[in-house]
Amino acid sequence: MEIVKKLNKALLHNKPDGRCLLNIEDFKNIAEAYTGTENCIAVLSDMQYDKSYIFSSKTSLELGLNFHDYPVTIDSIWEEEMLKKIHPDDRMKKYVHELRFFRFLESVNIENRSEFSVFSKIRMEDKKGIYQWIRHRMFYFFSPYNRKLRFALCLYDIEWDQSALSSRFLIINTVKGKVAFEDKMDYNNILSSREMEILKQIGEGLTSKEIADVLSISIHTVNRHRQNILEKLKVKNSVSAFNEVMDKFL
Amino acid sequence: MEIVKKLNKALLHNKPDGRCLLNIEDFKNIAEAYTGTENCIAVLSDMQYDKSYIFSSKTSLELGLNFHDYPVTIDSIWEEEMLKKIHPDDRMKKYVHELRFFRFLESVNIENRSEFSVFSKIRMEDKKGIYQWIRHRMFYFFSPYNRKLRFALCLYDIEWDQSALSSRFLIINTVKGKVAFEDKMDYNNILSSREMEILKQIGEGLTSKEIADVLSISIHTVNRHRQNILEKLKVKNSVSAFNEVMDKFL
Repeated sequence: MEIVKKLNKALLHNKPDGRCLLNIEDFKNIAEAYTGTENCIAVLSDMQYDKSYIFSSKTSLELGLNFHDYPVTIDSIWEEEMLKKIHPDDRMKKYVHELRFFRFLESVNIENRSEFSVFSKIRMEDKKGIYQWIRHRMFYFFSPYNRKLRFALCLYDIEWDQSALSSRFLIINTVKGKVAFEDKMDYNNILSSREMEILKQIGEGLTSKEIADVLSISIHTVNRHRQNILEKLKVKNSVSAFNEVMDKFL
Repeated sequence: MEIVKKLNKALLHNKPDGRCLLNIEDFKNIAEAYTGTENCIAVLSDMQYDKSYIFSSKTSLELGLNFHDYPVTIDSIWEEEMLKKIHPDDRMKKYVHELRFFRFLESVNIENRSEFSVFSKIRMEDKKGIYQWIRHRMFYFFSPYNRKLRFALCLYDIEWDQSALSSRFLIINTVKGKVAFEDKMDYNNILSSREMEILKQIGEGLTSKEIADVLSISIHTVNRHRQNILEKLKVKNSVSAFNEVMDKFL
């Protein structure tokens, strides 16, 4: 999955030197403060050790997620259980937005980075397999010692206002109460929606055969679409095509 | 202030018997988790000891509030510094909504009470004296030991979406992602807006003389309005009038 590779490269820094010195217990307590107070699901990701901790709540059951531990520990910064419930379009945009947020923060003084967070409205499947609007908030915690990103805290809860018309991806300045950046990705101006769909599958690391299966079309059709994508974007291969589209919005 | 008296009666229980056994340090940590993560102002009120703790953040300065301690300790569950910044109409509705929330929770099994919280959009003056839309969230924590309300956590932050048309007062079920109750108080169907204004001042405990000063009208005019209010509501005195209007919405 190209975008995930990019994110891993940007976010992870599990080298033996340059420890960030923050205490994970403090951040686990923050995650628990959220789950205990507002019943969200909190995913704490540790960039130094490439681990995640999922703090569940009653909301998990509404989303058909049954976590047996509290927290559940995962040997990756990616919480697959949660991610696979997200609508594929929103999952892709979530990745792009996360990478953008990281790059945005790199351009901000380290003292001011904690003023910013991500606010998204995305679709996730509930226990009945129906997509619900989910409020997704994300906070990054940088170390004052080695100045690197150490923790990401992702909060998921079911939005009480289900009237949204489309998914939303914002970077918020929580001190000023202002939108610092709003994503308005419109891939469709570049490629047809079918081409975009195929490009997204490529981005998620699927082969032509797998894409053909997912979309119930022949592998020849997939390859024809791939060829059209390369020609439209004037690139040599699909990975470049994917990066091209990503870069347009980063 | 009649509504505050009502609230004190409902919320406070500072009797030597029946201690709730919850540890305030745990709840101070929750308040700090919020201020540290999302830069809101967190006010933790302790119903057992009639105290409040204000945890400030950079957002405080945007609202022209300069707290010298962290947290500031107050010998009351009411945080006057914050409250006096709220638009008078919203402050009144906030009180009514708070009392309603308390009564609503009393009707809910103690095991399920933590599913509910208050979400409001209210107007508060910023450092320039301009009203901004503020997101106000409130959580109540009941003791599993004596089953009484022990802590209220109020979170204030500047709303990034300032496009709201009117204030809003909701009770949310955060597990299901549903609005459990929405306030649609329309006092104006009962009394004229001037009469309502005067009734609110009465509710806040002002004398006729003080109301006359606030509204820059004569005391005779105030008294004539008071008389009209009593006649319209068919009650004997202003306190009853105030309670009558309150009860209509509780």
